[in-house]
Amino acid sequence: MKSARFISSGVVCSGVVEGQVLVDSKGNEHRMDEVRFLPPVEPSKIIGLVLNYSDHADELGLSPGDAPVVFIKPQNTLIGHLEDIIYPEGVEFLHYEGELAVVIGKRARKVKSAEAMDYVGGYTVANDVTARDFITNTFRPPVKAKGFDTFCPLGPYLADAGEVDISRGVEIRTELNGRTVQSSNTGMFIHDIPSVIEYLSAFMTLNQGDVILTGTPRGISRLTPGDRIDVTVGGIGTLTNMVAPEHTHI
Amino acid sequence: MKSARFISSGVVCSGVVEGQVLVDSKGNEHRMDEVRFLPPVEPSKIIGLVLNYSDHADELGLSPGDAPVVFIKPQNTLIGHLEDIIYPEGVEFLHYEGELAVVIGKRARKVKSAEAMDYVGGYTVANDVTARDFITNTFRPPVKAKGFDTFCPLGPYLADAGEVDISRGVEIRTELNGRTVQSSNTGMFIHDIPSVIEYLSAFMTLNQGDVILTGTPRGISRLTPGDRIDVTVGGIGTLTNMVAPEHTHI
Repeated sequence: MKSARFISSGVVCSGVVEGQVLVDSKGNEHRMDEVRFLPPVEPSKIIGLVLNYSDHADELGLSPGDAPVVFIKPQNTLIGHLEDIIYPEGVEFLHYEGELAVVIGKRARKVKSAEAMDYVGGYTVANDVTARDFITNTFRPPVKAKGFDTFCPLGPYLADAGEVDISRGVEIRTELNGRTVQSSNTGMFIHDIPSVIEYLSAFMTLNQGDVILTGTPRGISRLTPGDRIDVTVGGIGTLTNMVAPEHTHI
Repeated sequence: MKSARFISSGVVCSGVVEGQVLVDSKGNEHRMDEVRFLPPVEPSKIIGLVLNYSDHADELGLSPGDAPVVFIKPQNTLIGHLEDIIYPEGVEFLHYEGELAVVIGKRARKVKSAEAMDYVGGYTVANDVTARDFITNTFRPPVKAKGFDTFCPLGPYLADAGEVDISRGVEIRTELNGRTVQSSNTGMFIHDIPSVIEYLSAFMTLNQGDVILTGTPRGISRLTPGDRIDVTVGGIGTLTNMVAPEHTHI
């Protein structure tokens, strides 16, 4: 099953995806082209992974460490499918990062990797937008590089864990203005989902709805105002956003 | 006015501090020694400052930068006054960091320093507990150093902005098992509150209830299980927590 959160006629709704229609809990149908998508979950925290695809590590000429390297994406970054990414004035190197997002299904604390997949509630698609201007060390992105408003598009759907067999690897593709710029497979993960959940839950309790951004594959390049960026993860969906200049959003 | 959030007879309440009593919105009185304190606010994000007291910078022999250096403290770190800080197994250097916490009063985006104090809703007291084992660079604390469960005691009260004249500097004191280990004044801030709000709100929207931890003064040392740690900020209150070994909290 796939579900979405959205605004329809001014009301926040949740609904199940049936073709091009969203069916809310009362059975009302909402046409996708008539709703405003919200992020499909409301996480208490969003955790990002640095350098988790072997093709991206090769591209950067960096050796990943033994443990996952993580950062926190603050709440103000969240936007939904089809919302604008605001291009900050003065930033020179704004990059997309297409990613698979894991959504935690139930409270997880000190979970071992063998049981970790029981704590995955589902998956969605993310774009870990990054202002590279502020990154001096790939392994320690400062808050400002990852934390601008609108830097975490998420959606459009939450796909239940049963919808996707991640263990077999799923395709991930990013298109910039219709041209494929990232094309990889989650089989290239350096740290797989169970080991990331074991690592994180060893020190921090993960709650239902929390999001783990699993890193981006090779093929990062610059965004400019007016760009359209589509991230597709096989079996889950396509997340689309436009890049808007900041002055249109004051 | 000072207020608190607490659990009384199993119910989450908010109340105003009147001496040793908390008065809830219905006028009911709750004795402080009979309630369980919660963090006085529910922030959508907690932002910490690195190296913001000149006495602490001197102690470490480090030169602060021109801009504030910040990190995100995840939500799972929050605990209230008199709750236990859990000492993680395997950690060698667990440190307290007594701090003044600024609470945002209304949505702030692109606020200039001259107007920034209008966006301060109040103040509380924080302990930015840190596992120094994981810090290799003071300016880039990894999530694991700052992000264990229980690493952000906050409270006991929210003091309205009008209660405290921060511009004149307020005293901050930390006692470890009754012995004073930190004694300083917010007048030693390297980046004052208005400039921090200007810096942050330039890229991230701050929401009502968001918390800024303003950094710790000189005098950091180790915590061990069984320790009692009191942080007092003049005119605001004293935040007290015990350090408990992890095995008591599984």
